[in-house]
Amino acid sequence: MTVHEDTVNTVEIIRKKRNGGILTHPEIESLIGGYLSGEVPDYQMSAFLMAVYFRGMGPEETARFTDVMLRSGSIVDLSFIPGRKVDKHSTGGVGDKISLILAPMVAACGVAVPMISGRGLGHTGGTLDKLESIPGFRTALTMDEYRDVIRDTGLVLSGQTAEIAPADRRMYALRDVTATVESVPLIAGSIMSKKLAEGIDALVLDVKTGDGAFMQSYDDSVALATALVSIGNSCGKETVAFITDMDQPLGMMIGNWLEVVESAECLKGKNVPDLMELSYVLGGAMVHLGGRARTIAEGITQCRSAIWSGKAYEKFIQIVERQGGDSSFIRDPSRYPVSKLSLEVRASSSGYITGFGTRRIGVLAVELGAGRLRVEDSVDPKAGIVLSRKIGDRVEKNDLLAVIKTDREEVAERAVREFSSCVTIGDSPPPPKNCVKATVDKDGVHAWVAPLTY
Amino acid sequence: MTVHEDTVNTVEIIRKKRNGGILTHPEIESLIGGYLSGEVPDYQMSAFLMAVYFRGMGPEETARFTDVMLRSGSIVDLSFIPGRKVDKHSTGGVGDKISLILAPMVAACGVAVPMISGRGLGHTGGTLDKLESIPGFRTALTMDEYRDVIRDTGLVLSGQTAEIAPADRRMYALRDVTATVESVPLIAGSIMSKKLAEGIDALVLDVKTGDGAFMQSYDDSVALATALVSIGNSCGKETVAFITDMDQPLGMMIGNWLEVVESAECLKGKNVPDLMELSYVLGGAMVHLGGRARTIAEGITQCRSAIWSGKAYEKFIQIVERQGGDSSFIRDPSRYPVSKLSLEVRASSSGYITGFGTRRIGVLAVELGAGRLRVEDSVDPKAGIVLSRKIGDRVEKNDLLAVIKTDREEVAERAVREFSSCVTIGDSPPPPKNCVKATVDKDGVHAWVAPLTY
Repeated sequence: MTVHEDTVNTVEIIRKKRNGGILTHPEIESLIGGYLSGEVPDYQMSAFLMAVYFRGMGPEETARFTDVMLRSGSIVDLSFIPGRKVDKHSTGGVGDKISLILAPMVAACGVAVPMISGRGLGHTGGTLDKLESIPGFRTALTMDEYRDVIRDTGLVLSGQTAEIAPADRRMYALRDVTATVESVPLIAGSIMSKKLAEGIDALVLDVKTGDGAFMQSYDDSVALATALVSIGNSCGKETVAFITDMDQPLGMMIGNWLEVVESAECLKGKNVPDLMELSYVLGGAMVHLGGRARTIAEGITQCRSAIWSGKAYEKFIQIVERQGGDSSFIRDPSRYPVSKLSLEVRASSSGYITGFGTRRIGVLAVELGAGRLRVEDSVDPKAGIVLSRKIGDRVEKNDLLAVIKTDREEVAERAVREFSSCVTIGDSPPPPKNCVKATVDKDGVHAWVAPLTY
Repeated sequence: MTVHEDTVNTVEIIRKKRNGGILTHPEIESLIGGYLSGEVPDYQMSAFLMAVYFRGMGPEETARFTDVMLRSGSIVDLSFIPGRKVDKHSTGGVGDKISLILAPMVAACGVAVPMISGRGLGHTGGTLDKLESIPGFRTALTMDEYRDVIRDTGLVLSGQTAEIAPADRRMYALRDVTATVESVPLIAGSIMSKKLAEGIDALVLDVKTGDGAFMQSYDDSVALATALVSIGNSCGKETVAFITDMDQPLGMMIGNWLEVVESAECLKGKNVPDLMELSYVLGGAMVHLGGRARTIAEGITQCRSAIWSGKAYEKFIQIVERQGGDSSFIRDPSRYPVSKLSLEVRASSSGYITGFGTRRIGVLAVELGAGRLRVEDSVDPKAGIVLSRKIGDRVEKNDLLAVIKTDREEVAERAVREFSSCVTIGDSPPPPKNCVKATVDKDGVHAWVAPLTY
């Protein structure tokens, strides 16, 4: 075994973090630069990542780490587009189709939205899979196409290109197989390095909390939101986070095409309460950070106008067509293929819905074909679950709770029983709660007080 | 990225340890077996090792880990040799030539000593390098030679063969470059898997403590000793540890050939107090565990007889010749080549020696040529340091403190200054202390009370 100078330095960096030290910018650069060039092998990086899991990173150190990851690739220059560019990032949930509503709605308010999304993995869905359920829709854009689309339409809905944050892409794959995913600074660095590379001026974060969220406890969600907001602001991008409920699926539909349909309906004015509450709050914040409204409340008012006036829906049709999608399926969803099986789940008793096993419902949707447990799995765009009831709703025995849609006969029957066991029915209604629980900005955590009814 | 079943299991094992869980025997077997077969890559093993660094292992878990490491290779069968086979292991120090005195002395008492040693690395010396400074001495024995030598002479002094604990050899190299060396269960597993594979029935451990030791604090040394003793006993090998002083070099000589000369002198009856105290205590314990003495004190008496009668020295000459060494150099050390430079270090003031910078003296000996900082470095057998004074000794200004021996002109002058700065001279003598501080057996830690003057 030959011990090289570089190896020795890397060992010292790992040891420093292991002992709880705060890494300097040159140390982080040496580590990540060496990792990308191949001088730092995977086995040193994974030992480092595990040390970070245990020791964490300070706020400035996390910002440094993010900055180095960000600079490992290209940073998109969107300065040729006038005004502030704003994006949203969600930590992922079940039935979370917010991006599909949000991006056209905010763009319709005159704020440019350059949005880079991911695919679903595990129990959560991914915006790219939803968009690709629209026949012809292309998410793999070149950098030139990315710039052209946002210039022409005021928004773009794209997948991550190879040029963006390559260090994160490699490190994310390594974290997945070394049990080092669940670390606030690593999650924060991964999210923010990608988002900051998009060419944005401000960012709104949707940090989910509850059973169906990545961070299940409220305190962990606040810690992650605080780290993300701190990085964003320290990198000169105004960043605001909202802590939002993931104790039940968002909206009524789960599954890629089903969620496109629900989003289109909402864009045409349908009120699905939790979905629209969240869309308006995040949208209002985006319009505000985009400089088109003095307050979030004013931003929300503009978003409501964009929906009522039909401009948000128009913008959605425009972006679908601009990125190659066949908008006739949006206009007339009855043209879309349907799942072979459509099975009803009915209430086993009377009472009030008091809770959902949201994570298990997410996993169930994957088993129906709506998502993937392995990166190489393919997705059935038609598959999913249509809910008839949400938390707080009254049900009588044998009332419809949900419809399960799948082509997989071997899963269908079990799925009905499984879904049934995911729904808790109680004798009295649970106290009502809002979807948006709190907001985190550079001044700290604040309770979220709804500025108006949505 | 393809996620295989094995990878998923390995991630779960890493996650379990990361979360503080206790691994089962099948889990450890899957991890180590997979590592040896190549299914578990280095990057998963290093993440696991870092998780162990933070979470530790329980006593039974450490024993399981050691057992799996042990069974990753061959276990030598020495049952054809009558009586109990006993070895000693030291955690390493400066000037530690105890093995050279101990093995022939204990063998002369009728206890078979199958000893597998390592090379020096870092500031500590290694028995193999010392033995190989004897012209012709062969330490790379085949398994057949190993068995033949111990059958013929009652002892064998060998290096580790490829068959013994291969998982440890790979893991040790990985730990070295991932800052995961300093972990009690990992150190314990590494030491004990090798020692238990030698074919021994009992083991005496010399766990050094103090500035020149691997474990510098007394509590850490006791923790390591406790883990080692627990593993040995749970694997059915009677194991006793001694916590011994490494706040000054052991004996008067540091350097490979110099230590052979000092060992031969001691075997012929010279009393170097700390060296012989330690040799007698460890030797007495080995004779006791070997079933040739009812108590350690009785074992010490037998060891003293072996020295006084000349039998220990005879046994040393016998093993040197049996393993190909030219004993004429032992009988007449003046025939051995000498270093080009021999520089005196003299006291800068009068007073009492109160301390040595022992680790720095170890590093200095390496720089003179006596050891290696990298595995591929070669060693100069002649180089080293001859001390004239030890802690507690009175010195007058300009008295000789030590002689530096080296061929390296570029190091010599600096070495004199450096050694000088490693010696602390005070106004009053420090309180006298024994080399052996405590003993750890299956019942716990006990103060060591010298059974007689050595």
